Amino acid sequence: MSGKKINVAIVGSSGYTGAELMRILLNHPQVTVTAITSEKSAGKPISSIFPHLAGLTSLVCEHLDPDTISMKSDLVFLALPHVTAQEAAFRFNKLGKKVVDLSADYRLSDPSVYAMWYEHTHQYPELLKEAVYGLPELHGSRIKKASLIANPGCYPTSAILGLAPLMQKGRVDLGSIIIDSTSGVSGAGRSTSLTHHFPEVNEGFMAYKVGTHRHTPEIEQELSALAGKQITLSFTPHLAPMNRGILTTLYARQLTAFDTASLHALYQDYYKKAPFVRMLPLGQFPNVRNVRGSNFCDIGVYADQRTGRVVVVTAIDNLVKGASGQAIQNMNLMMGFDEEEGLRFAGVFP
Amino acid sequence: MSGKKINVAIVGSSGYTGAELMRILLNHPQVTVTAITSEKSAGKPISSIFPHLAGLTSLVCEHLDPDTISMKSDLVFLALPHVTAQEAAFRFNKLGKKVVDLSADYRLSDPSVYAMWYEHTHQYPELLKEAVYGLPELHGSRIKKASLIANPGCYPTSAILGLAPLMQKGRVDLGSIIIDSTSGVSGAGRSTSLTHHFPEVNEGFMAYKVGTHRHTPEIEQELSALAGKQITLSFTPHLAPMNRGILTTLYARQLTAFDTASLHALYQDYYKKAPFVRMLPLGQFPNVRNVRGSNFCDIGVYADQRTGRVVVVTAIDNLVKGASGQAIQNMNLMMGFDEEEGLRFAGVFP
Amino acid sequence: MSGKKINVAIVGSSGYTGAELMRILLNHPQVTVTAITSEKSAGKPISSIFPHLAGLTSLVCEHLDPDTISMKSDLVFLALPHVTAQEAAFRFNKLGKKVVDLSADYRLSDPSVYAMWYEHTHQYPELLKEAVYGLPELHGSRIKKASLIANPGCYPTSAILGLAPLMQKGRVDLGSIIIDSTSGVSGAGRSTSLTHHFPEVNEGFMAYKVGTHRHTPEIEQELSALAGKQITLSFTPHLAPMNRGILTTLYARQLTAFDTASLHALYQDYYKKAPFVRMLPLGQFPNVRNVRGSNFCDIGVYADQRTGRVVVVTAIDNLVKGASGQAIQNMNLMMGFDEEEGLRFAGVFP
Amino acid sequence: MSGKKINVAIVGSSGYTGAELMRILLNHPQVTVTAITSEKSAGKPISSIFPHLAGLTSLVCEHLDPDTISMKSDLVFLALPHVTAQEAAFRFNKLGKKVVDLSADYRLSDPSVYAMWYEHTHQYPELLKEAVYGLPELHGSRIKKASLIANPGCYPTSAILGLAPLMQKGRVDLGSIIIDSTSGVSGAGRSTSLTHHFPEVNEGFMAYKVGTHRHTPEIEQELSALAGKQITLSFTPHLAPMNRGILTTLYARQLTAFDTASLHALYQDYYKKAPFVRMLPLGQFPNVRNVRGSNFCDIGVYADQRTGRVVVVTAIDNLVKGASGQAIQNMNLMMGFDEEEGLRFAGVFP
Repeated sequence: MSGKKINVAIVGSSGYTGAELMRILLNHPQVTVTAITSEKSAGKPISSIFPHLAGLTSLVCEHLDPDTISMKSDLVFLALPHVTAQEAAFRFNKLGKKVVDLSADYRLSDPSVYAMWYEHTHQYPELLKEAVYGLPELHGSRIKKASLIANPGCYPTSAILGLAPLMQKGRVDLGSIIIDSTSGVSGAGRSTSLTHHFPEVNEGFMAYKVGTHRHTPEIEQELSALAGKQITLSFTPHLAPMNRGILTTLYARQLTAFDTASLHALYQDYYKKAPFVRMLPLGQFPNVRNVRGSNFCDIGVYADQRTGRVVVVTAIDNLVKGASGQAIQNMNLMMGFDEEEGLRFAGVFP
Repeated sequence: MSGKKINVAIVGSSGYTGAELMRILLNHPQVTVTAITSEKSAGKPISSIFPHLAGLTSLVCEHLDPDTISMKSDLVFLALPHVTAQEAAFRFNKLGKKVVDLSADYRLSDPSVYAMWYEHTHQYPELLKEAVYGLPELHGSRIKKASLIANPGCYPTSAILGLAPLMQKGRVDLGSIIIDSTSGVSGAGRSTSLTHHFPEVNEGFMAYKVGTHRHTPEIEQELSALAGKQITLSFTPHLAPMNRGILTTLYARQLTAFDTASLHALYQDYYKKAPFVRMLPLGQFPNVRNVRGSNFCDIGVYADQRTGRVVVVTAIDNLVKGASGQAIQNMNLMMGFDEEEGLRFAGVFP
Repeated sequence: MSGKKINVAIVGSSGYTGAELMRILLNHPQVTVTAITSEKSAGKPISSIFPHLAGLTSLVCEHLDPDTISMKSDLVFLALPHVTAQEAAFRFNKLGKKVVDLSADYRLSDPSVYAMWYEHTHQYPELLKEAVYGLPELHGSRIKKASLIANPGCYPTSAILGLAPLMQKGRVDLGSIIIDSTSGVSGAGRSTSLTHHFPEVNEGFMAYKVGTHRHTPEIEQELSALAGKQITLSFTPHLAPMNRGILTTLYARQLTAFDTASLHALYQDYYKKAPFVRMLPLGQFPNVRNVRGSNFCDIGVYADQRTGRVVVVTAIDNLVKGASGQAIQNMNLMMGFDEEEGLRFAGVFP
Repeated sequence: MSGKKINVAIVGSSGYTGAELMRILLNHPQVTVTAITSEKSAGKPISSIFPHLAGLTSLVCEHLDPDTISMKSDLVFLALPHVTAQEAAFRFNKLGKKVVDLSADYRLSDPSVYAMWYEHTHQYPELLKEAVYGLPELHGSRIKKASLIANPGCYPTSAILGLAPLMQKGRVDLGSIIIDSTSGVSGAGRSTSLTHHFPEVNEGFMAYKVGTHRHTPEIEQELSALAGKQITLSFTPHLAPMNRGILTTLYARQLTAFDTASLHALYQDYYKKAPFVRMLPLGQFPNVRNVRGSNFCDIGVYADQRTGRVVVVTAIDNLVKGASGQAIQNMNLMMGFDEEEGLRFAGVFP
């Protein structure tokens, strides 16, 4: 580790992913956060919006002016809503800045798929071609050379990491994949709505956007690429009364007959160089509580002889490995830092 | 409604299902609870074990003596652990009492299946033949004539009600069924364990007993009977940080091509005489918060044209429709009362 | 109980207290709900706003037109925001209807106190004089004859019931009273705000409106009346991550030296005819979980010899004894029904 | 910061405070954890007991043998139950090791007070005299020279920090102090009990040990020392349905007439050199969510002109500033490190 630090900006710092970037970057030994933006909170110290950051930073939100921000930063994190991020990414890139975009805008490589699921025409199809899908466990070498990272969605991170080792030909029936996920409420952001009003969520549990969630094509794109074949799958998100965490339970029909031990060995081998994937001991399954606040993805596997299916369960913190932590992991790779730099910490349990 | 009331006993009253029987029966216009038993709390008023019942009953727990209890009651609810309930059901039945057994002991009609999943030989195989699986929506007419009801498990209630309308030949691929369920913690009972210690559960979410949960054969038995064909399916239970509720998300591959409207119509027709099944309006999906404390099962359906699957979501309160409420619904049918008697109340929201 | 039922209307039915009135009244043997109003949901069935009521009522929200509503009802519950309720109460009263107003508008008998704390001039000071503060444990006989009930606030109910037995001269130092309360989030209503957004509340706990909460003068008014002397006290509300419940811990300096047993006896005697006050056994303290969904107020007391203080702890469900249940208790008294009619049910635990 | 690291041992590593010591120390730049002990988990890797630590440490629990442990460590943290810790502290001290004892055993300087509240005779009264009460904001200079630190209790930390600035003569009536605290469940440890079983806690809230909690004499001892006069006060702990956090609301009668601004200035001045005390801006009050996982104590103050009282609200994380974080802060002082070393991180919000 060299003494040289880079300067980074966080664009859109008043949401939960912006705050989580701050929390982690404030302790990153090779980074100085030099600028943060928020249209609605411009002029306010970030500690007035997020009092948990008080005493640790005196940064004040400013308006998003790409030229000004660019002068202060080597790399820019975009924590903006989708559609809005399109142009911001374009402008910062043109100004020669590396960009990690936490929105969905550059994740879907086919603009027509983007148009269908997000109901907007992509304005920067040329830049879209250059963007790299920032899942380091799959695309580490491309990420290192990228200037624009499309940071993966939270559900896709949990689903793709759980299924990737099975995508090699002949392992599972690619038409049989079912993804059943449950998320904490912070995944829905900090904007209020009746759906996320405390008494409506607490002691409640529901499925939502059944068959229609926008993360579906993102998962299909990445798994199809791995499998070398177009995959269509079922994905159902659920909302649980907790702040953080995504647990994803994955089902696929075995083509090869696995026992659980060999399935486990396959995963262990696949992820042997991935510092943030923790394969649980044989017979154990993950719990989101063990990754809360950390960048880990915990995985447990089961080969069900009775039904001929593979069942895989993954757990991440939606705001860390599912968003801001992964964005920093991508930054580390882009800047040539150690992949784990600033992210080698345990979650907060209990 | 006649003025004549029946006397009932609750055997095993110190657990959550026992308390829930008390809560509901205290307001049942045709029932007097005349005896409650608890080995570990014999001699104690039930209100000292469950202070929410204070001021509403002065019943005191006694030891389980079938002869004494029988003299005081016309019908007996067994809220005992499995294995223990076997003999109690036998003895009360022999004493001429109707029995609703909330344990798993008389649910699996094949004693060898019971032996395999519960690791005990069934001691009363003859009585097992007479027991009726107490899911009123499927077996109403048999329940009316039964003297021993095997009250269904909580997960099976949510899964079977969600899948029953699809079991007719040609609707879905019977080999493709996946059941993904999430339960609140009260389903695990009142005995303490590290797994259910507050700080371990809160802000946590996990899958457990993946591929091995004992409710699996119960679901398979009932669906196989409906389909007229042996079904093997995948069932994964999850634990959510909430007290009550089971949400079950069900997947099956369509054989007939449904659209959501026709799927919805099929369910609406199937349950048109079932007072406790509420089909949600087209396009809506259930939330356990809306059934909390009530005997309803809410159902939402989706025919996914993209994947060729049916997705059904059901919600129940595990302690009511998943246990004590359903037991009382069974009692109503056995005693010739209105099926809804004492159960026509809304849940507690928020 | 006579076969004759009364007709009631709920004005402002789209909030939590409106829904709770519905839940309880649907099972009240002497009441038919004939009209419900909601400006923003007029034309919608209440079951679309509160799906937990589906299958139990087909009532549809209408606009508030006092003439129309009056024709359909004998008594009107007002579940409107304060200020708005002033005129509605006036108009229904003028139309000869009994009114139970759940807002704060008629609670403070001195209009200047109302003006100071609510920052509005009271428009109906004459009617204010006729309103009765609807705490049945204190004002039962006046409530029976009242045509307008000011239903108490949730915090005041918990505080006044806990302190009333001490207000007789010479028991405690009236200048030493401290009221420390904690409420669940439903007390803040169904309108969304960042403060009540799930991830902001869950795993959080805070004091709010320290020294300035509007329930303060209401508590002081009632205790002063009991004591025959103006009382000024400290009241601090807190917000806990739960849906329902208020726990209030009360402190006062003893003038008379009590031991806990005699303090307990004092309370037991004071509330011997109050069906919804449950004095806990000596040495026990209440928990809001035991009153959840019920109309009970649980009380525990402690005479601290070490400090010379009395410590009293009370628990209610803020939406039931703290609002809608108490409103129905008031209605029972006003209509000459049994005080407990429709309210004799246990809470939902766990 | 020198490159030289010290070696530390954690004795009693299978509880929540042990785990929290591990979490923080693993990222402390001047510490290596060289030994951890647990009688019941000896031989097991700590990551099997606390899976959130997996991938970050390969430490294995061993039996507590002071000689062995001493050879591996320069300083020992004792995270043992009270009474048990007495001897361990004695033995490690005798072996020349610095000790930070997280139990209550060395907190009460008067052995007769210890005997009365803990119902055990203190076996090491001589060592007790040497122990320093480890609240760095009060006793920083003594801590630096201490060889045995009695790490404060969680409630006392929140109460003493909130009251210390008022203890100077003439500010408040020392006989009027009331301390009303609410804790998350992790404060009760990892041992299971019905009281802390998830469904009993969730949606519940209670006061407990009213007038009798063992942290009372600890608070009185420290405040009395500051005031130079024996103080007797009321302390009521409450349990809230959350994992972490203590919010304490403090009341005292003003002798000097304060306005809120001057009260705020007094606190700001008192804590101007305390890096972990964050005075909130005037008019704001703390929320435990903002200190979750961090070593901060947030404080808000209010001078109530109406009642003549001071109301102070403090928030800490009971496992960090209330236990393990403070223990590490003490270690930093004892070892001559920067007081903030390894503790300069934000909490995890949401």
